[in-house]
Amino acid sequence: MTDIDIKAYMAAVGTKARAAATAMSRAETGAKNAALLAMADALLADAATLKAENAKDLDAGRAKGLDAAMLDRLELTDARIAGMAEGLRQVAALPDPVGAITGLDYRPSGIQVGKMRVPIGVIGIIYESRPNVTADAAALCLKSGNATVLRGGSEAIHSNQAIAACIHQGLEAAGLPRDAVQVVGTTDRAAVGELIAMPEYVDVIVPRGGKGLIERISRDARVPVIKHLDGICHVYIDDRADLDKAVAIADNAKTHRYGVCNAMETLLVHEGVAAEVLPRLNAIYTDKGVELRGCERTQAILSNAIAATDADWDTEYLAPILAIRVVDDLDAAMDHIRAHSSAHTESIVTEDYTRARRFLREVDSSSVMVNASTRFADGFEYGLGAEIGISTDKLHARGPVGLEGLTTQKFIVLGDGHIRK
Amino acid sequence: MTDIDIKAYMAAVGTKARAAATAMSRAETGAKNAALLAMADALLADAATLKAENAKDLDAGRAKGLDAAMLDRLELTDARIAGMAEGLRQVAALPDPVGAITGLDYRPSGIQVGKMRVPIGVIGIIYESRPNVTADAAALCLKSGNATVLRGGSEAIHSNQAIAACIHQGLEAAGLPRDAVQVVGTTDRAAVGELIAMPEYVDVIVPRGGKGLIERISRDARVPVIKHLDGICHVYIDDRADLDKAVAIADNAKTHRYGVCNAMETLLVHEGVAAEVLPRLNAIYTDKGVELRGCERTQAILSNAIAATDADWDTEYLAPILAIRVVDDLDAAMDHIRAHSSAHTESIVTEDYTRARRFLREVDSSSVMVNASTRFADGFEYGLGAEIGISTDKLHARGPVGLEGLTTQKFIVLGDGHIRK
Repeated sequence: MTDIDIKAYMAAVGTKARAAATAMSRAETGAKNAALLAMADALLADAATLKAENAKDLDAGRAKGLDAAMLDRLELTDARIAGMAEGLRQVAALPDPVGAITGLDYRPSGIQVGKMRVPIGVIGIIYESRPNVTADAAALCLKSGNATVLRGGSEAIHSNQAIAACIHQGLEAAGLPRDAVQVVGTTDRAAVGELIAMPEYVDVIVPRGGKGLIERISRDARVPVIKHLDGICHVYIDDRADLDKAVAIADNAKTHRYGVCNAMETLLVHEGVAAEVLPRLNAIYTDKGVELRGCERTQAILSNAIAATDADWDTEYLAPILAIRVVDDLDAAMDHIRAHSSAHTESIVTEDYTRARRFLREVDSSSVMVNASTRFADGFEYGLGAEIGISTDKLHARGPVGLEGLTTQKFIVLGDGHIRK
Repeated sequence: MTDIDIKAYMAAVGTKARAAATAMSRAETGAKNAALLAMADALLADAATLKAENAKDLDAGRAKGLDAAMLDRLELTDARIAGMAEGLRQVAALPDPVGAITGLDYRPSGIQVGKMRVPIGVIGIIYESRPNVTADAAALCLKSGNATVLRGGSEAIHSNQAIAACIHQGLEAAGLPRDAVQVVGTTDRAAVGELIAMPEYVDVIVPRGGKGLIERISRDARVPVIKHLDGICHVYIDDRADLDKAVAIADNAKTHRYGVCNAMETLLVHEGVAAEVLPRLNAIYTDKGVELRGCERTQAILSNAIAATDADWDTEYLAPILAIRVVDDLDAAMDHIRAHSSAHTESIVTEDYTRARRFLREVDSSSVMVNASTRFADGFEYGLGAEIGISTDKLHARGPVGLEGLTTQKFIVLGDGHIRK
């Protein structure tokens, strides 16, 4: 397609999405749940087709020389198809946030004022190779009453279109508009440029993928973006910590999973307990093959730690590597966090009431914890049911973004002929 | 100053704001209130100085040929100074939203998860000639724990600096950092360009002024903007309306004040009651000098109505002019609103339960009303205490934006050594 064709194509997608959003905003909870369950059934019933379409993408990927990790992310197995179906059923089981009214207090003028939770409208999702995002993101947007335009990676186009066919079966079975979920049918990169620059059709963009993708989209978007860039998460072990808890948390936060955004990347230790706690942690980390990069005071205690450079404090390793810094006190720890954190998740380990209270109030991250592993920063663990991502932005949605983050609130006013004096 | 100087100057302003924001985020409620009350005292004590500085701006404005309306907005009288001081005292009396914790539910894992309300950080305010905005906006940002960078119009620079001096007296009296409120000291337009493009120093921009200013800032900003553009507000009189209420509301919504964003600009009337209600309203509007522009069906009833053009449905008159359209039913009214509303405020007049419920749910505006005048869309009327503006955006803050809209929430997690299994 030429650029003019792409523009016209995306405008048509946008027009259909806008119309579907109006219908979705008034869709009943029962219809939305029925659609989600029918989609789950369709995915399972069409598993053979899904795998056949996925095989085309895998063949093309191999021919293009995609690496093994990329091919693995791209592959749809029976287990992954069952996982998608289960995810849809879980979203169907969540409470519907749309239409909930809070407040409705009477004002001195006699009017009653409250807020009603309502869908945002049209949500654009831009993602890379994992085709399961197609079902997961569509489900959350649908349950929250939004229309969705999905733009997956070109390497997954056949898989995504096959999943979209199951989604459309579900929508139609429930009497909801097909256009409530649209998968962009062209792999042309210009389509992304259009999608993020159509504020008349798209209300918010949620990019999911690598940092490069998200930075590019944030820079060029003409509509709001809900995003998270880095997870440079910190654990601070205070000198008033229970060291058994500290060791368990610092172990779990680093080694439970390495490639996730809520893994600890930098450990801060109060100088008063460094000589005691660091050797205990060193034994665990060494056993698990974690490379340690420390400040000078860390190296004086742990001879196996290599010297950390300035860049280490600002790096999201997503790997079995840990930066360690010994600090003078709580204020020094919070100064380090202010300078180097990506505002995702930070945790203090302490039994001191005042220090815990200060850390909770003063650390400006999307999740702030006391005596808990950073690995808990997650929509399921927080009870949101599911998440479309973890926002490190400050406005609208911060931290794990579930159904509520995909809605907004409007004021409602009930009167009985009231006029303003 | 050269552009390079402006860049350096604004970066210095931003650095100081960021440091002050950290201090303000932990400032106690009592200190913030003491600062607000001391600012109010300083404004009253320095009234003579304020008027002398204001006179310089007025002289320069006259020399530049500013029109009478502009000069009026620019003038600081004793009554206006007293009004600013009273506004500061009212903000001091409002509850402090910062630090409030909601939730803290226990999760199956044993952690406790809640949300804490926290300041946004650094708020940039860009405004035109009214110098009172300097005090009003600074007060709301300060009470909500933010640092503020204010950039007023060049025509009010002396007035704004004099008000800033009073604000700084108040901050220092309460032991809070001077830099919590900074008034940009240069009238160079390049300073605005810098202010809206420094995401490392500024978290959100609130523009206050004409539509041209707001559109320009929204287009060029590299940080989020909380804004409202137009107030094209609608009242729909249903055929099941109590016509006495309908007449009172349509009168009040149009004629209570003309130049405000929550005034009705278009009246929609169900064809079943048009012949009865329009002549009654016509008598009132004619008496008050309101020009009527109607569709053909309106003109068939009101011979004095001139023909409305397509442009009328999309115009915010801010004047004694009203567009009137007769519609077939509720759906036609909501279609018109969807096509032409600025998503500010719409009201239905009806005694019909189902239609009222549909209108509340389906109309996608920042305020949606039943049997009440659109003039109620206001932070004071809604009980927010004060407002920094009315947002027609969908994300973060929608409708009147008070202290809560100037804050955000972070997740907090309390554990006792909990790790993720």
